[in-house]
Amino acid sequence: MYKYVYMFSEGDATMRNLLGGKGANLAEMTKIGLPVPQGFTITTEACTKYYEDGQTISDEIIEQINEAIAKTEEIAGKKFGDPENPFLVSVRSGARASMPGMMDTILNLGLNDIAVEGVANKTQNPRFAYDSYRRFIQMFSDVVMGVEKAKFEAILDAAKEAKGVKQDTELDAEDLKAVVANYKELYKKELGVEFPQDAKVQLIEAVKAVFRSWDNPRAIVYRRLNDIPSSWGTAVNVQSMVFGNMGDDCGTGVAFTRDPATGEKRLYGEYLMNAQGEDVVAGIRTPQPISSLSETMPEVYEQFVNIAQTLEDHYSDMQDMEFTIEGGKLFMLQTRNGKRTAPAALKIAVDLVAEGRLTKEQAILKVEPGQLDSLLHPQFDAAALKAAKAVAKGLPASPGAASGVIYFTAEDAVAAKERGEKIVLCRQETSPEDIEGMHVSEGILTARGGRTSHAAVVARGMGTCCVAGCGEVIINEETKTMTLPDGRVLVEGDAISLDGSTGNVYAESIKTVEAQITGDFETVMGWADEIRTMQVRANADSPEDAAQAVAFGAQGIGLTRTEHMFFAEDRIAAIREMIVSKTVEQRENALAKLLPMQRGDFEGIFKAMKGLPVTIRLLDPPLHEFVPTAEEDIKALAVEMGLTYEELKTTIEGLHEFNPMMGHRGCRLAVTYPEIAKMQARAIMEAAVNVQKGTGETIVPEIMIPLVGELKELKFVKDYVVAVAEEVLKENGVEMEYKVGTMIEIPRAALMADEIAKEAEFFSFGTNDLTQMTFGFSRDDAGKFLDAYYDNKIYESDPFQKLDQEGVGKLVEMAAKLGKQTRPNIKLGICGEHGGDPSTVIFCHNIGLTYVSCSPFRVPIARLAAAHAVVLNK
Amino acid sequence: MYKYVYMFSEGDATMRNLLGGKGANLAEMTKIGLPVPQGFTITTEACTKYYEDGQTISDEIIEQINEAIAKTEEIAGKKFGDPENPFLVSVRSGARASMPGMMDTILNLGLNDIAVEGVANKTQNPRFAYDSYRRFIQMFSDVVMGVEKAKFEAILDAAKEAKGVKQDTELDAEDLKAVVANYKELYKKELGVEFPQDAKVQLIEAVKAVFRSWDNPRAIVYRRLNDIPSSWGTAVNVQSMVFGNMGDDCGTGVAFTRDPATGEKRLYGEYLMNAQGEDVVAGIRTPQPISSLSETMPEVYEQFVNIAQTLEDHYSDMQDMEFTIEGGKLFMLQTRNGKRTAPAALKIAVDLVAEGRLTKEQAILKVEPGQLDSLLHPQFDAAALKAAKAVAKGLPASPGAASGVIYFTAEDAVAAKERGEKIVLCRQETSPEDIEGMHVSEGILTARGGRTSHAAVVARGMGTCCVAGCGEVIINEETKTMTLPDGRVLVEGDAISLDGSTGNVYAESIKTVEAQITGDFETVMGWADEIRTMQVRANADSPEDAAQAVAFGAQGIGLTRTEHMFFAEDRIAAIREMIVSKTVEQRENALAKLLPMQRGDFEGIFKAMKGLPVTIRLLDPPLHEFVPTAEEDIKALAVEMGLTYEELKTTIEGLHEFNPMMGHRGCRLAVTYPEIAKMQARAIMEAAVNVQKGTGETIVPEIMIPLVGELKELKFVKDYVVAVAEEVLKENGVEMEYKVGTMIEIPRAALMADEIAKEAEFFSFGTNDLTQMTFGFSRDDAGKFLDAYYDNKIYESDPFQKLDQEGVGKLVEMAAKLGKQTRPNIKLGICGEHGGDPSTVIFCHNIGLTYVSCSPFRVPIARLAAAHAVVLNK
Repeated sequence: MYKYVYMFSEGDATMRNLLGGKGANLAEMTKIGLPVPQGFTITTEACTKYYEDGQTISDEIIEQINEAIAKTEEIAGKKFGDPENPFLVSVRSGARASMPGMMDTILNLGLNDIAVEGVANKTQNPRFAYDSYRRFIQMFSDVVMGVEKAKFEAILDAAKEAKGVKQDTELDAEDLKAVVANYKELYKKELGVEFPQDAKVQLIEAVKAVFRSWDNPRAIVYRRLNDIPSSWGTAVNVQSMVFGNMGDDCGTGVAFTRDPATGEKRLYGEYLMNAQGEDVVAGIRTPQPISSLSETMPEVYEQFVNIAQTLEDHYSDMQDMEFTIEGGKLFMLQTRNGKRTAPAALKIAVDLVAEGRLTKEQAILKVEPGQLDSLLHPQFDAAALKAAKAVAKGLPASPGAASGVIYFTAEDAVAAKERGEKIVLCRQETSPEDIEGMHVSEGILTARGGRTSHAAVVARGMGTCCVAGCGEVIINEETKTMTLPDGRVLVEGDAISLDGSTGNVYAESIKTVEAQITGDFETVMGWADEIRTMQVRANADSPEDAAQAVAFGAQGIGLTRTEHMFFAEDRIAAIREMIVSKTVEQRENALAKLLPMQRGDFEGIFKAMKGLPVTIRLLDPPLHEFVPTAEEDIKALAVEMGLTYEELKTTIEGLHEFNPMMGHRGCRLAVTYPEIAKMQARAIMEAAVNVQKGTGETIVPEIMIPLVGELKELKFVKDYVVAVAEEVLKENGVEMEYKVGTMIEIPRAALMADEIAKEAEFFSFGTNDLTQMTFGFSRDDAGKFLDAYYDNKIYESDPFQKLDQEGVGKLVEMAAKLGKQTRPNIKLGICGEHGGDPSTVIFCHNIGLTYVSCSPFRVPIARLAAAHAVVLNK
Repeated sequence: MYKYVYMFSEGDATMRNLLGGKGANLAEMTKIGLPVPQGFTITTEACTKYYEDGQTISDEIIEQINEAIAKTEEIAGKKFGDPENPFLVSVRSGARASMPGMMDTILNLGLNDIAVEGVANKTQNPRFAYDSYRRFIQMFSDVVMGVEKAKFEAILDAAKEAKGVKQDTELDAEDLKAVVANYKELYKKELGVEFPQDAKVQLIEAVKAVFRSWDNPRAIVYRRLNDIPSSWGTAVNVQSMVFGNMGDDCGTGVAFTRDPATGEKRLYGEYLMNAQGEDVVAGIRTPQPISSLSETMPEVYEQFVNIAQTLEDHYSDMQDMEFTIEGGKLFMLQTRNGKRTAPAALKIAVDLVAEGRLTKEQAILKVEPGQLDSLLHPQFDAAALKAAKAVAKGLPASPGAASGVIYFTAEDAVAAKERGEKIVLCRQETSPEDIEGMHVSEGILTARGGRTSHAAVVARGMGTCCVAGCGEVIINEETKTMTLPDGRVLVEGDAISLDGSTGNVYAESIKTVEAQITGDFETVMGWADEIRTMQVRANADSPEDAAQAVAFGAQGIGLTRTEHMFFAEDRIAAIREMIVSKTVEQRENALAKLLPMQRGDFEGIFKAMKGLPVTIRLLDPPLHEFVPTAEEDIKALAVEMGLTYEELKTTIEGLHEFNPMMGHRGCRLAVTYPEIAKMQARAIMEAAVNVQKGTGETIVPEIMIPLVGELKELKFVKDYVVAVAEEVLKENGVEMEYKVGTMIEIPRAALMADEIAKEAEFFSFGTNDLTQMTFGFSRDDAGKFLDAYYDNKIYESDPFQKLDQEGVGKLVEMAAKLGKQTRPNIKLGICGEHGGDPSTVIFCHNIGLTYVSCSPFRVPIARLAAAHAVVLNK
């Protein structure tokens, strides 16, 4: 019989894929003798099978669950439904990758009309027993059976009203007993059956609910944002309940072995006395710092400190732990490698190496490349910050600075983002439903919740600035207002700035500045550079971008787009003159005006790059992008150009294309108008010669011919380019190495790469276009249907963000191989936006590319990812 | 030393690729002892080398040419520039494939100031000598050196004027001597050097000119139309001159061993006494039938009849021969397998099998599949023809019927074709410059020239109807008028009809009807069906098309497009209602109206196909194709739909796409609106059930999901389709096999075909879209630059006509292989327009496809091509 259920004592940390992160670590803690309430894990394979079997749990698995229950009852010395000492369990999800708050949890499972009395007897606390039962019925009904929570809340409110009290705590055991009776009645009314009294029935339904929650919409969105495949499934952990809410010698908390915000080596966490675990995470009550536990319960604190150290030593990484104290006894409910901010990740990596726990290779893996993004984003300009006045202060929950306008709901934030606004999402507290709104925001402000609240955890994961638990402001999501301590009321669209490192809130817009790579960041990047073998270049169209790229460690420019330069006010006229030219001579005249400007652009870039290689792409977009479409603009241009309106209109209409993406662009322009390519080749070579003469640095220009699909096409354009280049060198009496290569961005180019490499001295994979053509959908149009694709789990990630390694990647790999067959030393790079995506960087390393090229701001991310690739391949 | 020059005595017919067709056959005729003026062939490799060497002839090759001249002089017993008996040669191109009139020829090479006297002495005919010299200077200047012919004509005209005569023949030897002097003076003035007196210099320049002519624009167009790669190059044949124009015991002619129009077994040809070879081909003088030679020169005729029989026996095919008679002596200048009309090709193939000369396998190769096209095109409707009155009669030069409007120049014809008109090109005579105009015309009428004139030969090759040498009409290309024998004057745009089988010309439009497959055609198609292993299906969207497909031998339907049905007047309203629906319910209501209509369509097709398989594709085009764009149409539709103009306008604008080709279409519609796919699946299955019940025939519907790029996408749609199909079968209590498959038309689908085959029961390669996406250009937009690509020899054939086997074909082959890996019995077909292109059909056979599917009118072509594939692979 295939094994779908593992006792905690049967597993270990290596079984993460099968048992999920939580389950594997519960097993590992059990193995090393830590106090863990025992239980069992239903594997991720059982989840996959559940979906394969049409969302049912097979008899085989139910049987294994029942066996595991029996064993767990024996270990606990308790029995389901025992009127004296009833066995209760928690049921929690636990996927391979942590998905905080995304899936469902059910506590106190096993309570029924008899067990509730058992709990009352055992604890001598009937109020606690009935309150637990009430909560369980509500949670089970809501989470497992889908009955609206509000209907239960109404019963509770009615009970309070009848008794004339305000707080739940003012209801006594008898009151709650009545509430339980009403809850069960509601359950029967809503679902047509009695509330299940059989704990095993409760359990199977709860397990199904957890499996189901793997596919709830917020989990799907979370997976998409975090590149987690839906095929992984979630495990389910069934664990003996321990109670942190049974009295004042009880409590529950979460803690980190190092500060997850800064990385500082100190036990860091929060706890609540007389509370259940979810209370801390939900951020509804504001908890105490973990250090204060040393005063309340010094022995427990000492035990916990030891356990924390043991766990950090054991895992050689910062741990994020959950614990419960029941009747003065400490239980560990979870440990995992803790999520951390980027600065914390860097500091922890550097410290762990300094402490001799990790090698540099191991340490760099502790920093997620994508996380660095937060460090590369703007911080407040010091002067601007000095002039600003904080209007409130909350908890510094996720570092960085954000400046934007206020929105109060995730929906509004998403809509505003689509309009191009920069948003700061302001919420009472966030919940998993807010995930998309959080993702589009520059910063997040919450009025409630601690540094381990949902908002804080998720924001840190996203690298988004967050100020949490800012109780000084009153946020009203209904009226969409935020009242400041000074009485001012901010509304939707008002400016706000957040400092996630101090917790300061500013009711104004504050200028931000770029970050620097120093300290731990510099150290880790140094290691990454030692380790990685693939180069990292940047895409840069201006001297400013080029300088930024160099500052962030780029080893060259992988893509300079020359068309961006064409849109500048002083050149667009010449471009348009070229476009409306009727003869080669007219076109050459217009191009002659552009030559000095383009040469100047390239000189600036060559200078900024100080001799590093620069790949410049010849004109790519279709010419209609340079001409106006509105009638009045055409009229104005006609006057400017000395043409009649009709003449110009005819020319512009002649440029119309049905599918511009697949039209007259790229090297097709150079084939029909070689004079454009010639002008650009001359500008590049003259700039290179001038800068080489001026600076004494060796310049090696790389001229890139875009949109090639056929060897002869490349050769046709290359022959012109080489002729001009040789001419320029001869005119200047200079010898200079230069390369002529091509983009591989059309499927045919990838298929024919062995042929194309006969002429191409380098390939640069243009994965944006290659993705569009390989998938057969244009980025501009795909929005209309891609959501349906995500909703139906046809695609799980955006192929324009993360390279589709199976399909597009197959072409890239094939082309790389074919190119090398023909020209073993061919330079291979990628210059699509994928070049800054860590998973794509690793893929590029694995298939042997020479470099990746990405936005300057993603260069450090790519450098680290390239180092990861080396370590992961060892 | 590498051998670039072969004496005729060194080669044979197998060396066609190296020596070209003409050279190889001259060698073969030499080998079997026929009277061939001796000479040598400069190989096609020398041509390739000429281009590789930057259009120069290497010293190595020049040396070999000089050696060959020496040998040829020895054989001829003459010497270049001999004042007694000078050696003269012709220089002719000769590629692997016949390209009639496309490249240059130079005659009488070797003439100079001394040799001309030698000719005069030898022939005792100074006038002939100086006329030859004059012609040679003019031809050399024009063809080799590029001096305008008109300038020489002016000198000749001046000489005639000065003497007060009209005809060239009225100039005597002294006059011509003066003309020669003036010609040489003009040459020097134009080119700055003396006319070359050294025959070897003349020869090398002439050879270069022939090599150069390989790349002249008309040769490039001809190659593109005939799928001849530019890499083949042309050979050059240098042959001792014999003169058909030295007197009345001289002559020249061309002949076929069988009638090239009908295939009838009889010697068929024409000759001119006292003429040079080019005079016959050019069609300037109207020649005598070959049979009359038996009266003029009975011995020569008998010798020629014997040679013709020898050659046909030798080559086992109908021969096309050129000969010259010099001083009563017969010389063979060329033999080749003769071009023939489709009926002739069929008859000759059938006869050669009956005569025991060829097997069926060999015989089918004698019929070019593409040629059948002419037999599958309309013929005149018998009744309409009876009512029509011929206004003139010419030579029936290429069979078939054509009805269209008159254009007088190739340019006007091309422009009119682009406007969608049907053209009959009417010319005084055609020349190679007219090739594109001839290609776009339904029929060709010439006033001059015989059945071996340029117009006749080219039209037969193209399968285009042609009436040649219609001297009864006066065609004036300048005034663009055609005067009929009855005095009526037709102008551009007037209706005309031609019968290429009778030579009749009608000054009216005549109804045409479809052809039948009977007689020799039927016999050859029967052989093809016996031999071929790949199936042939048709693309058909209506019962009429389906019936036509069956009549032409289709074994099923490979593609029924369901959207064409949507445009019919009675359904477009329901479609539009569906498009503007805001809810699933509204959409389903609209679809419910379409269901019975679609079901009716499919019933018609299933009935017509009598149990043969039918593949029906679900809705493919983007929805905006079904809505109007003009403001007034939108307004009208809004009223019809009960919407405000603004509402409807917003909906329509919402459908706009930047790149519709890469937009919301194909199965993407089914993913976003599954109800459309469900309605169509229901219509297909209900139609199948009804027809099966009604006819008792077993119907196996094949439901095809278009534009798939990913397994999960296919599965998503397939699940809906299968659910509906099962529902319909259950409702009807019927069991029925049905298949659900997919188009492979997106590069990613080809790359992931192993995955996709898990769900797809068949693949149908949609090579139209696959070509567009693989090349990254849309068919609608590529027109703007593809001409530049052809002009620059980047692409040599239209990838939308002939499958790009290297690039797109690589994807198709890969997908076929991957599909079979997963599902060994997967049905593989192609349904793009390439399915009717013979070279693509052969490719599809070679990579193991199950069937090709093409337009009903190309089914017989595909059947024959599929048989060729089998024979060619043996």
